[in-house]
Amino acid sequence: MDPLPLLQDLIRCPSVTPADAGAMAVLEAALVPLGFTCTRLRFGEIENLFARRGTEAPHLCFAGHTDVVPPGDAAGWNTDPFGAEVRDGTVYGRGAVDMKGGIAAWIAAVASLPRDLPGSLSLLITGDEEGPATDGTVRVLEWMEANGQIPDMCIVGEPTSKAVLGDTIKIGRRGSMNVSIALHGVQGHSAYPQRADNPIHRLVRVLHQLTAEPLDAGSEWFEPSTLQVTSFDVGNPATNVIPPVARARMNIRFNDLHSSAKLTARIRDLLEAEGARYELDVSCSGESFLTQPGDFVSALQSATRQVTGVEPALDTGGGTSDARFIARYCPVAELGAVGTTMHKANESTPVEELRALSRLYATVIAALLPARTAA
Amino acid sequence: MDPLPLLQDLIRCPSVTPADAGAMAVLEAALVPLGFTCTRLRFGEIENLFARRGTEAPHLCFAGHTDVVPPGDAAGWNTDPFGAEVRDGTVYGRGAVDMKGGIAAWIAAVASLPRDLPGSLSLLITGDEEGPATDGTVRVLEWMEANGQIPDMCIVGEPTSKAVLGDTIKIGRRGSMNVSIALHGVQGHSAYPQRADNPIHRLVRVLHQLTAEPLDAGSEWFEPSTLQVTSFDVGNPATNVIPPVARARMNIRFNDLHSSAKLTARIRDLLEAEGARYELDVSCSGESFLTQPGDFVSALQSATRQVTGVEPALDTGGGTSDARFIARYCPVAELGAVGTTMHKANESTPVEELRALSRLYATVIAALLPARTAA
Ligand SMILES: [Zn+2]
Ligand SMILES: [Zn+2]
Repeated sequence: MDPLPLLQDLIRCPSVTPADAGAMAVLEAALVPLGFTCTRLRFGEIENLFARRGTEAPHLCFAGHTDVVPPGDAAGWNTDPFGAEVRDGTVYGRGAVDMKGGIAAWIAAVASLPRDLPGSLSLLITGDEEGPATDGTVRVLEWMEANGQIPDMCIVGEPTSKAVLGDTIKIGRRGSMNVSIALHGVQGHSAYPQRADNPIHRLVRVLHQLTAEPLDAGSEWFEPSTLQVTSFDVGNPATNVIPPVARARMNIRFNDLHSSAKLTARIRDLLEAEGARYELDVSCSGESFLTQPGDFVSALQSATRQVTGVEPALDTGGGTSDARFIARYCPVAELGAVGTTMHKANESTPVEELRALSRLYATVIAALLPARTAA
Repeated sequence: MDPLPLLQDLIRCPSVTPADAGAMAVLEAALVPLGFTCTRLRFGEIENLFARRGTEAPHLCFAGHTDVVPPGDAAGWNTDPFGAEVRDGTVYGRGAVDMKGGIAAWIAAVASLPRDLPGSLSLLITGDEEGPATDGTVRVLEWMEANGQIPDMCIVGEPTSKAVLGDTIKIGRRGSMNVSIALHGVQGHSAYPQRADNPIHRLVRVLHQLTAEPLDAGSEWFEPSTLQVTSFDVGNPATNVIPPVARARMNIRFNDLHSSAKLTARIRDLLEAEGARYELDVSCSGESFLTQPGDFVSALQSATRQVTGVEPALDTGGGTSDARFIARYCPVAELGAVGTTMHKANESTPVEELRALSRLYATVIAALLPARTAA
């Protein structure tokens, strides 16, 4: 099966988060003939889809999203962002790489394989990956757990390749948290600081302790964690006044040596040491996770090598993806198209690369299901 | 001569900076009959007065200002702020203590002494002490220097007394400077700090180095210097963006162990060490100064003790006064009324305290002129 027509059908659904725009129906129409049982899961305003074929172990899941970011300035596009036009062997449209292309390639790969594979297959498709991600993968996983559908392993079809198809497999992601601090002092005249308590000096000391040294030097599979203070604001116009409160915000991207709870505790300890009143607000958009290289990851690597001739690097860089939610339940890795045009104008994928991705996914499925059965 | 009528005449001139409102004419009318030659010095919109009697050394100068701060909310006053009303033995009005009272007391003191004192006397009176202080004492001193009128010693009639008349003589003042820093970095995404340069981290480090330790532990006559960061502002609303610039302001009150130039050099060194582009803006409203205790100060102390029965403390605290300009030319000390009501509603001085201040000034003049002659 050629993945191109399915990708074109998907691109022609203008499924900008939270709109479904018919995308899930396109998938159902493709999956039912392949023997999948489809369950539509609507949470809030989000359409999600869980599709399963077979009940045996090992259970291999493919996770992806049909929602796309807005096309942005129309003037930046040479084609209709939802037209799926093919020019010079390349298909153009929002979602071509992120990640309707991955979904089409996977389904075409399944179609190209015999029906009597060992184990079983499923797809976890959400319409809320580019948005708040609250009514999408998280809630589908809860439903899957409640219904005995947790897989043994999962591949997320995000466009992980950097320059050529297959050059990068993501086996983890850093966690990310935003921290907001308000530190209170005692207002006063700058000529008589002994009668005041300068909250700026206290906050400078706290932030200095957090930024003077790196959080870590990196770990086996991760770059060093980073902590960036993104704002520090007082807004005091009077040069002779010590202000009553100082505020700062920071963003922390942390590897597997940390958790948001431990980092929050460290910040709280530094604030407590100041002995001043404070407010601390922490919002964690995802903990770090790592799928330890082993049989699962090795199978992905050798399939990639075999199909593309490229040696895939194992990577944990970049932002977050829904893999962070799946990692709580089973081993997960991300492998997909070259992502250079994602979220940009003229998002596109060469048709031959789309077809190569589909062959890669077929090789992966064939490698993983017998491999698990043999183990 | 009773200082009260002269003080009342002065209070009735509503000489809120920069207005003269007839105050200098009142002084001229009092000084000419006492043998003073009066020179009106107008700089910009400011009236100033230099008055001199005699040409012999030692030359003792009295410095003061006729300008006053605005009365503020009229509802806070029980009398007309420019009415100079006497109630229950206390005279009320803006400038009663800061410092028309001091000027009236000094002139009455001169009037009560014989004309044939040794040495010579002068008065340096400005109308620009409560304002920007650019067209007042500074420029009169320049004129005095150009005309061979620099005194051998100077007494400033600011209300230095804290609780009872004579309890405090100021022999110096701390310097004060405002510092403004803009530190530039390289904007970027908080997930990729290696491609950016966070100016907040650099500014936190600079400010930490400036605030972690006190500037000094104080000196023989001074409290420790203080450095207060009064604002730190970035104004970055995006949690995932490293901002391009961070700004901070600070106020430094420094004793005789420092100068604004040395402090500026230290801040500049810390900024240079960051290797980032920066703007540094320093505005010094006055260097620190100290009149070393010796014959001049001792004469003030013993006169005060003799008239008031109070042991005067030598002090260098508080804000700035025009004494900081005079100190560049000759020894200067400040001695005057109880200042508790200065700049407030119902500014006032008990008439008996005004008369005691005049007796104190007469004793000071008598002590200083023979003392210098004998030396
Ligand atoms: Zn995506
Ligand atoms: Zn004054």
